[in-house]
Amino acid sequence: MGKSEIRTVCKVDFEKPAANQPYLHNRWHPDIPPTATIKNGETVKIECLDWYPLPLSSPYFLTNNADKFARTGGQIQNNDSADDVRNVDLSKVHYLSGPFEVEGAKPGDVLLVEIMDVQPFQDQPWGFTGIFDKSNGGGFLDEMYPSAAKAIWDFEGIYCTSRHIPHVKFAGLIHPGILGCAPSAEVLNTWNRREAELIAANKLADRDVALPPLPHNTHCGSAASHLHSKIASEGARTIPGRPEHGGNCDIKNLSRGSKVYLPVHVPGANFSVGDLHFSQGDGEISFCGAIEMAGVITINFKVIPNGLETIGITSPIYIPGPVEPSFGPGRYIYFEGFSVDQNGKQHYMDVTVAYRQTCMRVIEYLRRFGYDDYQIYLLLSCAPIQGHVAGIVDIPNACTTIGLPVDIFGFDISPGAKTAEGLEMGSAAFETGKEKGVVVSGTGANSEVSFGGGLTYKE
Amino acid sequence: MGKSEIRTVCKVDFEKPAANQPYLHNRWHPDIPPTATIKNGETVKIECLDWYPLPLSSPYFLTNNADKFARTGGQIQNNDSADDVRNVDLSKVHYLSGPFEVEGAKPGDVLLVEIMDVQPFQDQPWGFTGIFDKSNGGGFLDEMYPSAAKAIWDFEGIYCTSRHIPHVKFAGLIHPGILGCAPSAEVLNTWNRREAELIAANKLADRDVALPPLPHNTHCGSAASHLHSKIASEGARTIPGRPEHGGNCDIKNLSRGSKVYLPVHVPGANFSVGDLHFSQGDGEISFCGAIEMAGVITINFKVIPNGLETIGITSPIYIPGPVEPSFGPGRYIYFEGFSVDQNGKQHYMDVTVAYRQTCMRVIEYLRRFGYDDYQIYLLLSCAPIQGHVAGIVDIPNACTTIGLPVDIFGFDISPGAKTAEGLEMGSAAFETGKEKGVVVSGTGANSEVSFGGGLTYKE
Amino acid sequence: MGKSEIRTVCKVDFEKPAANQPYLHNRWHPDIPPTATIKNGETVKIECLDWYPLPLSSPYFLTNNADKFARTGGQIQNNDSADDVRNVDLSKVHYLSGPFEVEGAKPGDVLLVEIMDVQPFQDQPWGFTGIFDKSNGGGFLDEMYPSAAKAIWDFEGIYCTSRHIPHVKFAGLIHPGILGCAPSAEVLNTWNRREAELIAANKLADRDVALPPLPHNTHCGSAASHLHSKIASEGARTIPGRPEHGGNCDIKNLSRGSKVYLPVHVPGANFSVGDLHFSQGDGEISFCGAIEMAGVITINFKVIPNGLETIGITSPIYIPGPVEPSFGPGRYIYFEGFSVDQNGKQHYMDVTVAYRQTCMRVIEYLRRFGYDDYQIYLLLSCAPIQGHVAGIVDIPNACTTIGLPVDIFGFDISPGAKTAEGLEMGSAAFETGKEKGVVVSGTGANSEVSFGGGLTYKE
Amino acid sequence: MGKSEIRTVCKVDFEKPAANQPYLHNRWHPDIPPTATIKNGETVKIECLDWYPLPLSSPYFLTNNADKFARTGGQIQNNDSADDVRNVDLSKVHYLSGPFEVEGAKPGDVLLVEIMDVQPFQDQPWGFTGIFDKSNGGGFLDEMYPSAAKAIWDFEGIYCTSRHIPHVKFAGLIHPGILGCAPSAEVLNTWNRREAELIAANKLADRDVALPPLPHNTHCGSAASHLHSKIASEGARTIPGRPEHGGNCDIKNLSRGSKVYLPVHVPGANFSVGDLHFSQGDGEISFCGAIEMAGVITINFKVIPNGLETIGITSPIYIPGPVEPSFGPGRYIYFEGFSVDQNGKQHYMDVTVAYRQTCMRVIEYLRRFGYDDYQIYLLLSCAPIQGHVAGIVDIPNACTTIGLPVDIFGFDISPGAKTAEGLEMGSAAFETGKEKGVVVSGTGANSEVSFGGGLTYKE
Repeated sequence: MGKSEIRTVCKVDFEKPAANQPYLHNRWHPDIPPTATIKNGETVKIECLDWYPLPLSSPYFLTNNADKFARTGGQIQNNDSADDVRNVDLSKVHYLSGPFEVEGAKPGDVLLVEIMDVQPFQDQPWGFTGIFDKSNGGGFLDEMYPSAAKAIWDFEGIYCTSRHIPHVKFAGLIHPGILGCAPSAEVLNTWNRREAELIAANKLADRDVALPPLPHNTHCGSAASHLHSKIASEGARTIPGRPEHGGNCDIKNLSRGSKVYLPVHVPGANFSVGDLHFSQGDGEISFCGAIEMAGVITINFKVIPNGLETIGITSPIYIPGPVEPSFGPGRYIYFEGFSVDQNGKQHYMDVTVAYRQTCMRVIEYLRRFGYDDYQIYLLLSCAPIQGHVAGIVDIPNACTTIGLPVDIFGFDISPGAKTAEGLEMGSAAFETGKEKGVVVSGTGANSEVSFGGGLTYKE
Repeated sequence: MGKSEIRTVCKVDFEKPAANQPYLHNRWHPDIPPTATIKNGETVKIECLDWYPLPLSSPYFLTNNADKFARTGGQIQNNDSADDVRNVDLSKVHYLSGPFEVEGAKPGDVLLVEIMDVQPFQDQPWGFTGIFDKSNGGGFLDEMYPSAAKAIWDFEGIYCTSRHIPHVKFAGLIHPGILGCAPSAEVLNTWNRREAELIAANKLADRDVALPPLPHNTHCGSAASHLHSKIASEGARTIPGRPEHGGNCDIKNLSRGSKVYLPVHVPGANFSVGDLHFSQGDGEISFCGAIEMAGVITINFKVIPNGLETIGITSPIYIPGPVEPSFGPGRYIYFEGFSVDQNGKQHYMDVTVAYRQTCMRVIEYLRRFGYDDYQIYLLLSCAPIQGHVAGIVDIPNACTTIGLPVDIFGFDISPGAKTAEGLEMGSAAFETGKEKGVVVSGTGANSEVSFGGGLTYKE
Repeated sequence: MGKSEIRTVCKVDFEKPAANQPYLHNRWHPDIPPTATIKNGETVKIECLDWYPLPLSSPYFLTNNADKFARTGGQIQNNDSADDVRNVDLSKVHYLSGPFEVEGAKPGDVLLVEIMDVQPFQDQPWGFTGIFDKSNGGGFLDEMYPSAAKAIWDFEGIYCTSRHIPHVKFAGLIHPGILGCAPSAEVLNTWNRREAELIAANKLADRDVALPPLPHNTHCGSAASHLHSKIASEGARTIPGRPEHGGNCDIKNLSRGSKVYLPVHVPGANFSVGDLHFSQGDGEISFCGAIEMAGVITINFKVIPNGLETIGITSPIYIPGPVEPSFGPGRYIYFEGFSVDQNGKQHYMDVTVAYRQTCMRVIEYLRRFGYDDYQIYLLLSCAPIQGHVAGIVDIPNACTTIGLPVDIFGFDISPGAKTAEGLEMGSAAFETGKEKGVVVSGTGANSEVSFGGGLTYKE
Repeated sequence: MGKSEIRTVCKVDFEKPAANQPYLHNRWHPDIPPTATIKNGETVKIECLDWYPLPLSSPYFLTNNADKFARTGGQIQNNDSADDVRNVDLSKVHYLSGPFEVEGAKPGDVLLVEIMDVQPFQDQPWGFTGIFDKSNGGGFLDEMYPSAAKAIWDFEGIYCTSRHIPHVKFAGLIHPGILGCAPSAEVLNTWNRREAELIAANKLADRDVALPPLPHNTHCGSAASHLHSKIASEGARTIPGRPEHGGNCDIKNLSRGSKVYLPVHVPGANFSVGDLHFSQGDGEISFCGAIEMAGVITINFKVIPNGLETIGITSPIYIPGPVEPSFGPGRYIYFEGFSVDQNGKQHYMDVTVAYRQTCMRVIEYLRRFGYDDYQIYLLLSCAPIQGHVAGIVDIPNACTTIGLPVDIFGFDISPGAKTAEGLEMGSAAFETGKEKGVVVSGTGANSEVSFGGGLTYKE
């Protein structure tokens, strides 16, 4: 009734390693026990670390606290080098807060999660967007842009700006990248089986096609030690979202004010949340492409008994809130992409290829204003771009569109605009020893044997 | 200056076959000569037939004019049978209006096309949405829904309703499915080569992967007869959109008030337009899934000299107008789909698979209100659903979302709603002799060897 | 069912005077008989003349048809002189279409009127905005701007432009200025009594405070001749809207797609409509300040039995449609005005004064771009400006705001913008012999004894 | 650069009376010295008390801290009685934070104030809306509703709810009610002169028409004691907004993300801010009608040299941000009101009267769902209703509209809805000894001699 501060059920500690904090975990498994209990109908606050626990504070501060930084397991620093991104340890991500038991929830129910707010920590008003190196994570455009890169974003209230992508400012469509209820043993088994089948069928692929359970760096939350090896060997990685529970769906408008309807698979629901984003573009194309941040999410929980049947759902659904930043429909430039790849090769109705080409069209367009390709790649990952499936039936060309909001730029980017003369466009943060990121020319290589989004095979 | 009616540069005739009307054509080819000339800066009206020339008028009227209907080449009737859709002749589509020469346009320029309005003909206030039979055209969900079906839509001003999908009403986001400038010989050659390569590489596929030039039913516009065989053997089919000029991109918000920037490939630009849609959902999933209609488009033309270079584009871009129907962000239910197909098979980052699954989630949800699956499939094709690429980097699962606007329904479809008791939901139009469309169960069949959107191979 | 064109229940004739067309009338009176009957549930088209029947067509056309123009009673021409506005005969306005009897409607019911569409006539793609001379009609700012002026607007689809206010283009928020059901004898009597009381109480005012019944130029529709003198002596003028039925409420967003709930006072409802506007700003400040046009309105009618009681209304209410032109919230410059008038005099909580001052703030702001005050006055009258009551309780200052959409200008009007150098701003149309309109300085004159919106008294 | 928390330049103290806190003040006067200095270009946080310093915390807390509450001067408690509102001391309001000197600002400049965020204090997640007693403050509808009443609002993230107005929930359009730069001596003199003239001219009015300087309870900030009597006798009250600087303009969409352009009258600008609102409806009709709260505002300051001349303004202007809660245009019910008052009396073009009538139409409409009039009066004051000036030229009737957002209600309020059977509607908080507020019948009293908004005179 508003008469006291809302209860915080998870308080993170930047003074010690994430792996030592029992209310965090980094795998999905039914045997990870709840870390707190929430009443049906209650609103609580949950603090979240990010993808890779962010450093507590600024580089200046850290100068004097180098070992504190190391202690926490923080991987990404607020500086002008992408060395940390280049060398990131992906076995650790994501440290989720939870699980939380919701009183009365049982399998077959739906957990109605209303996101009342998401805010960064007041004393950590920054986040980052990263492009992984092609050999350590990669991203949607890594064929063209294989280097690691980074942009640091500063938060001032609703807005963010970056010294690495000057003359851009936008309001955050702030949201959790990951939320969901724990899988049952049966659901977990389904995940492990079907992802193993994909891996088995693609042994020759030139890249990982899925991430099987990985004991290394598994954090089992508060599970008793005799459960650790089971959780470590079976626990599902948090990177992919999955239809049965949502998880890491990275949906940009599943934001403040949204109501999410989540399937419950285990008694108590065992809800977890994390991977807070200050903003993200449709697709989150550079992989850690959102503006990753640490912060607090305020959630109201309600149990809908037998909801899976009465509502008729098998995957999560959600209803956005009324406060997303809005531009008029005429304040976007829309770009079209088709399933003809950068080598001129025709693909059959491949939306993945079409969306990649649409991204390339935006990059080509923005170049004339002085940004380099990596800056634009970073920007498309995190700014509120609208990525639409446009036409998906006109064989052989799928068509997708990207709407680029013009009002996030501090200068005129309309087709009739002059180039942004006199503006200094700076640079993204790159690896030590590389002044700029590597760009691979998009022509000539017609040796690709591609399916579903450009996967190729070792010969 | 508004002192007289705007000039109409193309007036279609419902009294004679489309194939006999020289200001129409149904292939892309540089040798199809302009049918009219438009001044740089001029606004004109262009009448358009539809995909398959619609009948002039009502069934009642047609009762007395059966042969008139036949004469025009009209293929789809305003009735309650999908026999016409079942037997449609796809070699004829689309009859485009044009080409129109724009004074001064030359290769390398950009043609700025501002869509001032799109309206149905006053005396033909209806259109249709069709699902093709799997063996004659098919659609995005034909694995599950192989039957032909149809919904007739009645227009009253800005709104449409259908007797085949009761209790739904929405405002049209009216737009042309196809617009673009003619290809040069070089561009056309590129198209034919790369699509032929796809066909060659997929000879064993269980369906057409692309449509090569087809002399049968080619309409060369006003081309001199000595050019006919060349155009017929080389002319690109209008079904796919293509990156070099746009064409049949079927983009729902490329609508009234939009400015489109089109690459010019031949002197005079040779602009064509057609395939008017009263409304369409993202993806246009049932193939002729928009509300197809005949009508009039009003366009202003401007030439931007050397625009490809100065603007920095290789494919069309556009800026929407301010009048699209708008619902608040909280007036959508969003559904999530992942690249795990209906057989439980895991695909690698396949947005096409994910989008198909998202469609299935909506169908499952709406069933409880009494609609059958074919009605929902038709509705998703043509209603203003928002189809987004959400997450495209979290291996192995691409995630897409569909936002379903709740305000197009005349009853409450929220998750907490009761079923729509007491409402009569009627039926889509089906083939003679079939009371309902065939539904193929989405389970069990794990023999599929799929890539890029579910293409399978003959064994 | 969309199988034939929608029935037109009123077809106007530009070949003969409005006064001779029996399906028109220009007073509200219960004895004006219905001119057509509409079924409960039916959708029909109704053609409308405008405020002052517009000329049939262009000046060029009229050159050869001067007497045709005179014959129709058309008062405003598509030319560059405001002589016609200066000399307008206000006793004629407005010629409404109807009344229409709706089957089954009876007093106490509510007539649900859904505006399916409003369109100008295809062969009259223009309208006008006028400023009346202070001595013949006046307007909201006539103390400062006493001259007559005019802007002609050209329509191209959804957009309009004016040669009299260059570099402005916007989409119409098209609507009827007037719609309502006929008053009963009792309601009419109430109107006449209370307006007569106001007139009686203000005999010394320097301007008309209300318009009593005026036999001169009364058009009784199809009433039998023995009723003419009664209707002429009692009939309510159409200029004011009135709470009991709506009438001339001039509400800009009561537009396409809106549902209006109208009180029924007489059997059959006797609905009338007219005064179509292509666009209007909040306040319609220059009196005939909307873009006045002739055209066609498409309406669906439904009777809600006993609706006044079941819905609980005494005045009309309405629910807008989803298609109004939308700009983002950040695409407006907002101006503030308070109840301190242009002479520096403090008024007590007077919203009328505050709104006038807000208008003056916009005029002052736009001057630096080269427009003269009359152009801006015209523009504020008809462009989609947002006029809000902001604060109405902080004695003694009421505060109102006006939001000016920046996207209707073809150049940058932001606070940081340079002046619009190099652009030619032209001129409004003025009276013959006056090059520019008269501007009365807004300072010094502290002799005003004002209340309620600046009414002063003769001494 | 986001590397540390943003600087807080004003930190309020709930442990001691507002009057003892030198960084607060409650009059406008050029001699109140700055309390802090802000750099040109800097972003800072400013803590604000509210209208009447709110108690630190909950009633439970206060039970044990009665004298702490008294000590702070807090006037309004989080309880279910309106006694505190009944007896409020209006001589104290508003305690503003500041003034703040902005480096380099000088008279003639414009201070560009960008509101980066506004948030309630985390440990005080509530606010209130009050209706003053007619004899102590009154409000816009006090002729009909003379009693004091109160609603307490609880905040959970972006949303608020009230136990005093059940079944309503909405997102805050959070904003400062007051912001502005200090007047120069000359400007202050103008204010005092013109408001004194109004008072002098209305000595017989039945209510205060303006508030002259009042030494009692004047808080001079950190001014040296020798200045106190001057400030107390000359200082302008904070209640009205004024055109020269803005001040208490109570504009609901001057919210997060807005840029405000403020005239500078004294060296250093001497900017003050306060009166934070979680939400407000257009008009703020019940006087302390917004949801009044204590909290923190984050502002970026920039000086635009000579801005008054280069921008061409005399009053503040602003450009809203992109994040205001948005409903679709079709999610409002609009009500119409005209300048015919509740006694049936016709007023001449009086927007104040029209707006009051529009409010009454909403109250009448919502009654059928079970709310009492005071609950609706409170709701209209604080919920995001859209109050528009519709028509202001059709003599004698001004017309205004109010758009009521339907999505803030937890049940269906559409015209076709049944009454909200089964829902318990509770009650507003009233004075001790009164179970419900007094309602004065709106008929019969035709003795009123009204102008500008219903002011009457003692006889």
